[in-house]
Amino acid sequence: MLLEFGLRRAQERGASAGARAALIGGADFTSNVGVSRVVGYPPQGTHAHSMVQVFMALGGSELDAFRAYADVYPDNCLLLVDTVDTLESGIPNAIRVFEELREKGHEPVGVRLDSGDLAYLSVQAAKMLNEAGFPDVSIVLSNQLDELVIWQIIIQIEKEAPLYGVDADHLIHRLAYGVGTRLITSQGSAALDGVYKLVAVQDEAGDWSPAIKLSETPAKVPNPGYKHAWRVYDRRDKAVVDLLGLEDEDPREMDELILHHPTEHTVYRTLPQDGISEVEPLLVDVLDAGTPVYDEPPVEEMRRQRQADLDRLDPGVRRIVNPHWYHVSLTERLWDLKQTLIQSVKGNSDV
Amino acid sequence: MLLEFGLRRAQERGASAGARAALIGGADFTSNVGVSRVVGYPPQGTHAHSMVQVFMALGGSELDAFRAYADVYPDNCLLLVDTVDTLESGIPNAIRVFEELREKGHEPVGVRLDSGDLAYLSVQAAKMLNEAGFPDVSIVLSNQLDELVIWQIIIQIEKEAPLYGVDADHLIHRLAYGVGTRLITSQGSAALDGVYKLVAVQDEAGDWSPAIKLSETPAKVPNPGYKHAWRVYDRRDKAVVDLLGLEDEDPREMDELILHHPTEHTVYRTLPQDGISEVEPLLVDVLDAGTPVYDEPPVEEMRRQRQADLDRLDPGVRRIVNPHWYHVSLTERLWDLKQTLIQSVKGNSDV
Repeated sequence: MLLEFGLRRAQERGASAGARAALIGGADFTSNVGVSRVVGYPPQGTHAHSMVQVFMALGGSELDAFRAYADVYPDNCLLLVDTVDTLESGIPNAIRVFEELREKGHEPVGVRLDSGDLAYLSVQAAKMLNEAGFPDVSIVLSNQLDELVIWQIIIQIEKEAPLYGVDADHLIHRLAYGVGTRLITSQGSAALDGVYKLVAVQDEAGDWSPAIKLSETPAKVPNPGYKHAWRVYDRRDKAVVDLLGLEDEDPREMDELILHHPTEHTVYRTLPQDGISEVEPLLVDVLDAGTPVYDEPPVEEMRRQRQADLDRLDPGVRRIVNPHWYHVSLTERLWDLKQTLIQSVKGNSDV
Repeated sequence: MLLEFGLRRAQERGASAGARAALIGGADFTSNVGVSRVVGYPPQGTHAHSMVQVFMALGGSELDAFRAYADVYPDNCLLLVDTVDTLESGIPNAIRVFEELREKGHEPVGVRLDSGDLAYLSVQAAKMLNEAGFPDVSIVLSNQLDELVIWQIIIQIEKEAPLYGVDADHLIHRLAYGVGTRLITSQGSAALDGVYKLVAVQDEAGDWSPAIKLSETPAKVPNPGYKHAWRVYDRRDKAVVDLLGLEDEDPREMDELILHHPTEHTVYRTLPQDGISEVEPLLVDVLDAGTPVYDEPPVEEMRRQRQADLDRLDPGVRRIVNPHWYHVSLTERLWDLKQTLIQSVKGNSDV
């Protein structure tokens, strides 16, 4: 289970847009209360360290703090156990409060580990919770998690849990991951290095003329013209290429598809129609001359669509590390137009 | 000269906050028109590639585009010269338009190079502009610049300019740097890894009790209590340490300062008062019980203060690469309080 925890690391409405995108992209819940309310998901989170600190600063204890929280949230009691010491204090105190809750007829939700060696601590926490009669409460992990850290935690648990008499599969299923910073920020790539470039101009008669800009870096020369985009699926029903073509082209009507690399003139291939199971149009009108024309589906539907799209990608392009490149190609006519425009601009410098 | 160009890479009001911070931090101008207006600086920028592309897509030329721009901005004509080819088309066309402007009694402002080898191209552009009688128009550089890239460009120009008969110092003085992405985004560090932690709690009688949170990473244990911060200057008038102390401490009244490393108990030193030229209080009240109480000075004054503060730092801590660490230390009493609280929490786990 994945919980989106990014609010404190995001900027203004970007925090909400990011939380919503996380729900569409696969997060099960978000701690962002406002977004949860808007999209109709219950928010999920825990208390802060400061809740425990206040009790201790005023002469109380971690146990007092946990009890107070359980009083307010008897049916939604998820305790953050690392303010003092996870295994020496947090987990034992949580178990004591969980027992008190159960005596009153409530079932606790779980604990959250937010520091230290999360793989080791989750095995030890699971062992203690199992032995105390709470084998099914959640163990939420957080602290600079990302997909690689989570992957490593799982691998370590698979090896280490059996050494302590803990069923690794059972533990992995009760884990939840709170991912904040590295989900909501663009870790490792501070800006999406894309720009809007002019590719076509409409004249007063309403006709479109393609436009181009040259660059010493061929990959930065925009593909000109008023275009459409298509996704091509092979006979396994897996996506093999996204194809850019001109407005009046339809790959479904071509005898065979000629797929050009966007810049490398020697790299192209042909795909016969009988190797294709579907050609899916990708463009949807969102704005028409400045007017919004798109009815946005509910988040739940976008989530299903996203999962369906992912299922149609080859496993190779979905690898976390060193994935296979997914290809975006140009049609023959778009390739020819691009070459013609490049040559025409080179000969039109007025000097 | 530094121009802030970050608007397209920033989020919402963060773009404006960043542009304003850049002006305080040393940028001479920003292309952010709204912020420029608010702070009273003239905005600075150039036209986009698309301006030239539109002319060309509709049958005109780069020269037509430059002429149209010069017609509208005869006294503020800064031309982006890399839409077609910087040296073959952009610079010659710019020179032609500059000559036409001068004939009409206007002086051009400059050119902007946005792609290719900016060091090489700026030398070549300077040579062409010098020979055409425009030795003083600005040459604005942009394209993924940051402090290291700019440093390398200057080093290359110093070596390469003389080979082409261009005075390197003169060229470097006419350069301006448009810095966007790597100024407005947190390149290399997607999030400021700081958090608000509870350090003191006020009871009903109005008294403050210090609070603490333990961590397996000593650097993550917050420094407890209601504190003040001071900057200590040595007899050269250079800042040597920032000192955190308790509310009722004043380092100006101590016989000597005992400076404790925040976590390493063996690392401390003493500083006698006769080695100190000034102890500057750093905290300013901004909010008082939720009410803003701070009169913000104008940007120009903050800019001067920032420069004055920088001038009082040792050159070693200002190095771009591998700077010397600037120290933040604790007073003896704060260090003792921290140790006492850590021991008290460790003995107060209720288990």
